[in-house]
Amino acid sequence: MKPLKRLSRELVYKGAIIDLYRDKVQDQDGHIQDYDFIGHKGAAAVMPVTDEGKIVMVRQYRNALDRFTLEIPAGGLNGVDEPGIVCAARELEEETGYKSDELEHLITINTTIAFCNEKIEIYVARNLQKSKQNLDEGEYVDVEEYAIEELVEKVYNTEILDAKTVASIMAYYNKFGR
Amino acid sequence: MKPLKRLSRELVYKGAIIDLYRDKVQDQDGHIQDYDFIGHKGAAAVMPVTDEGKIVMVRQYRNALDRFTLEIPAGGLNGVDEPGIVCAARELEEETGYKSDELEHLITINTTIAFCNEKIEIYVARNLQKSKQNLDEGEYVDVEEYAIEELVEKVYNTEILDAKTVASIMAYYNKFGR
Repeated sequence: MKPLKRLSRELVYKGAIIDLYRDKVQDQDGHIQDYDFIGHKGAAAVMPVTDEGKIVMVRQYRNALDRFTLEIPAGGLNGVDEPGIVCAARELEEETGYKSDELEHLITINTTIAFCNEKIEIYVARNLQKSKQNLDEGEYVDVEEYAIEELVEKVYNTEILDAKTVASIMAYYNKFGR
Repeated sequence: MKPLKRLSRELVYKGAIIDLYRDKVQDQDGHIQDYDFIGHKGAAAVMPVTDEGKIVMVRQYRNALDRFTLEIPAGGLNGVDEPGIVCAARELEEETGYKSDELEHLITINTTIAFCNEKIEIYVARNLQKSKQNLDEGEYVDVEEYAIEELVEKVYNTEILDAKTVASIMAYYNKFGR
């Protein structure tokens, strides 16, 4: 099997957090089609685990879904060169008010590969120390703690739908949960 | 905690599979910011399980990542009203050449909630019957079978990164894998 061949990539819109491109792509039979491509600088996320084994989650309003969601803390990299572990530690402190010097890689995901290169590195954070929340302007989150078994149940009953959160809960439960 | 308030939504680009909008959003303090919003019609995916317990996967080239990926079969809904289970059954047959009349819901995910409403319903398919592959024009996939334990390992060693595939492998392994 051969790769598709990209003939051109043209920026058609520069957004607030994403850039949209129109690609001309040639398939193995020589046909040329337009593909959407969204360039994203990458992100990191973290599953913070308290000394009692509870998972620290954030609840916030998501404009793209028109509803509140329950998620693990996450945020965009400060530029494509920022290490994911540095971003994860920062977002942990900013969103939950906990610090950790004990971050361990869990999984990495590409969120939506049909049209976007967004990659999220996901860490488990332990040995949480109380610090203070420091949200971005316009960012409002509630911090809530759950047992991992409660979160697993919320995935299977479709109460939690966010892909990074679903993948992390399941990957954590498989590795550490029992 | 209050929802954000969307003041307007303006279509700025109509792509091949997505539409991009610029939203004006007012936060709880009254500040107004631009948000990117990508409208997506939704998708479905399927974990096909053979009578021997192997998982049927597809390998294909992804333009957005510039590489081949190993994924569960998936595809876009034929319009927003198509039931996910119908789409999942169709994509199973088209991409792998297997039919199934035994589909069971596993999980549902929103792939990238910071800027997109894409939702993927994911099913487990059993009692697979040989039919024939019927790919879209320009679509080329190799079909490969794996034990679930091999796939779990490929997630933890970051060989598999696709979010729907990572979430499904982990959710399946938790529910049925042992």
